[in-house]
Amino acid sequence: MASTQGKVITCKAAVAYEANKPLVIEDVEVAPPQAGEVRVQILYTALCHTDAYTWSGKDPEGLFPCILGHEAAGIVESVGEGVTEVKAGDHVIPCYQAECKECKFCKSGKTNLCGKIRGATGVGVMMNDRKSRFSVRGTPIYHFMGTSTFSQYTVVHDVSVAKIDPQAPLEKVCLLGCGVPTGLGAVWNTAKVEAGSNVAIFGLGTVGLAVAEGAKAAGASRIIGIDIDTRKFERAKNFGVTEFVNPKDHEQPIQQVLVDMTDGGVDYSFECIGNVSIMRAALECCHKGWGTSVIVGVAASGQEIATRPFQLVTGRVWKGTAFGGFKSRTQVPQLVDKYMNKEIKIDEYITHNLTLEEINKAFDLLHGGDCLRCVLKV
Amino acid sequence: MASTQGKVITCKAAVAYEANKPLVIEDVEVAPPQAGEVRVQILYTALCHTDAYTWSGKDPEGLFPCILGHEAAGIVESVGEGVTEVKAGDHVIPCYQAECKECKFCKSGKTNLCGKIRGATGVGVMMNDRKSRFSVRGTPIYHFMGTSTFSQYTVVHDVSVAKIDPQAPLEKVCLLGCGVPTGLGAVWNTAKVEAGSNVAIFGLGTVGLAVAEGAKAAGASRIIGIDIDTRKFERAKNFGVTEFVNPKDHEQPIQQVLVDMTDGGVDYSFECIGNVSIMRAALECCHKGWGTSVIVGVAASGQEIATRPFQLVTGRVWKGTAFGGFKSRTQVPQLVDKYMNKEIKIDEYITHNLTLEEINKAFDLLHGGDCLRCVLKV
Repeated sequence: MASTQGKVITCKAAVAYEANKPLVIEDVEVAPPQAGEVRVQILYTALCHTDAYTWSGKDPEGLFPCILGHEAAGIVESVGEGVTEVKAGDHVIPCYQAECKECKFCKSGKTNLCGKIRGATGVGVMMNDRKSRFSVRGTPIYHFMGTSTFSQYTVVHDVSVAKIDPQAPLEKVCLLGCGVPTGLGAVWNTAKVEAGSNVAIFGLGTVGLAVAEGAKAAGASRIIGIDIDTRKFERAKNFGVTEFVNPKDHEQPIQQVLVDMTDGGVDYSFECIGNVSIMRAALECCHKGWGTSVIVGVAASGQEIATRPFQLVTGRVWKGTAFGGFKSRTQVPQLVDKYMNKEIKIDEYITHNLTLEEINKAFDLLHGGDCLRCVLKV
Repeated sequence: MASTQGKVITCKAAVAYEANKPLVIEDVEVAPPQAGEVRVQILYTALCHTDAYTWSGKDPEGLFPCILGHEAAGIVESVGEGVTEVKAGDHVIPCYQAECKECKFCKSGKTNLCGKIRGATGVGVMMNDRKSRFSVRGTPIYHFMGTSTFSQYTVVHDVSVAKIDPQAPLEKVCLLGCGVPTGLGAVWNTAKVEAGSNVAIFGLGTVGLAVAEGAKAAGASRIIGIDIDTRKFERAKNFGVTEFVNPKDHEQPIQQVLVDMTDGGVDYSFECIGNVSIMRAALECCHKGWGTSVIVGVAASGQEIATRPFQLVTGRVWKGTAFGGFKSRTQVPQLVDKYMNKEIKIDEYITHNLTLEEINKAFDLLHGGDCLRCVLKV
């Protein structure tokens, strides 16, 4: 039993006090887990564009001050009343997408979304008492996505934590908290790409490359990567991309370029940027009759997608994915095992390693073209 | 062998000379079928809203003068060279959605669309010589949708004609040329509604009622009909609709009304009107995580659908259907058999019976609220 059990832990965390202002490394007080909660020592966390989006102030649901972060790995420090599926010492990945296994969503067999705690995590608090477990000098600090991993210790709901193989290197598998599973699952669970398919991927960041990796594993014939930064092309070959298109090299709309390249359009397309115009292009480059487009990127608040309904009436399908359709607590441990068996990549996505203290530098790196994932030692 | 074989046939047809002007019953000359073509004596034709749409002039691809009509039944008069699957005397339903069984689309196993003759039918001519088989006093009259059934005789491509049970009453099964299969197939083939599902249907015309019939047959629990004309509700009960909502009775957006009625949204929704705002409502009334919306109605040219991408990222699916996903030559005969076995309704959709000479009256009826299908004796 940890000597800290039942006590407030004071530790370092990166606090976002205001939108678009540098995060501040603070001594944060982390309250003990209440019923149904788990306190986790975070050892490694990566940064993801969703953290940057909320930090930028463009997320209308963003609350400040808060502790961001949702792609991490750590060790359970202690658990609250009634928690049975994990115990102190377990190696875990916090999951922003919960899995309670009891709600209408979890029981549907049709989705990985879970309804149990959203009413609390959506407003930055814990469900038990509708309060935060974080404070700085008496001021509460909001939780973020039910994970808040930019902290040496965090408190999450028990339905938001996946227990993993203790042999797995936490500095690597932390990436299985968001981007890599999102891309792989978009292909395997949401689109269900078949062998021999033609695939288009818009945006060759971490998620786009994970889509390529998933498509290659599924046996896709042509994997066409589209990006306006040609520097990304060479690296993308290692993830399975077979052809590259830079929209800037073409006068025609990119959807027409792709339709012409593929004798009528691709079988599957994936938007991994979060740009609503590209989402339209991704749909419209799909083959009439069956082409399926999956929205993976997160668009800025208030923006809308549009197309002519004829695109759908003639057989294209428009879908989206959240966390790649993976059921978090059930399937994240399976993904960890796949990594341990060398069936999926992780190391190749990690381009930078820094410490929590350097988090503002890490955000700068994330906006540069050559960073995929920057992992912070917490 | 018909004595008319190989000769021009002069017969009555309703010619649309100009958009929005009354059709004119004319003596039309119908040339013999060329290679791969079939000349059909049309005995009964119904009117559908797509005829009215093109006639109105709002269809940018509409060509005048033309002979409209695409929901009909008749008897093969003669066939051109190389036609093997039908012969003179066969009872047939012309199919605006062709099925060649050879093209990329037909062989895909993923769609009922066929690419073989679209390049010709889309511009009102026959594929063999890129000309029309219809003329009036030497002036060519365009074909329409590859069917042109508002004529005592028409010429269609052999890939556009389904041979049916000669016992089937042509004055009924003519409806299997468009609206009824579109609705049934949207449920069975495109959405694949399961037993126990909640379904919302926007628009309670022929197609919407066929959706209801299909949903009932699939075992749907709740079938919610939405229409702004409450007079349609009583009739819709006979087709399986279990609840009714008139958007005019509510201050909230209709999608919110439906979400509230169904504890989070319906499992499947169908837009059977052709209104892009309603298409959005139909998507947004679907349940998070799995709700699927199918666009069945045909929107006016140039109009666009829109929504927030978050609707798709959180698991809703946006699709469309053309001819309900049925493969025309293969499956229309099967639908005829289902009707003969009393497994599907047809008679109940026929609210009016007139003659070809009365076609302008029939168009007026179609725009009134109590007409479903008006069948014309040709």
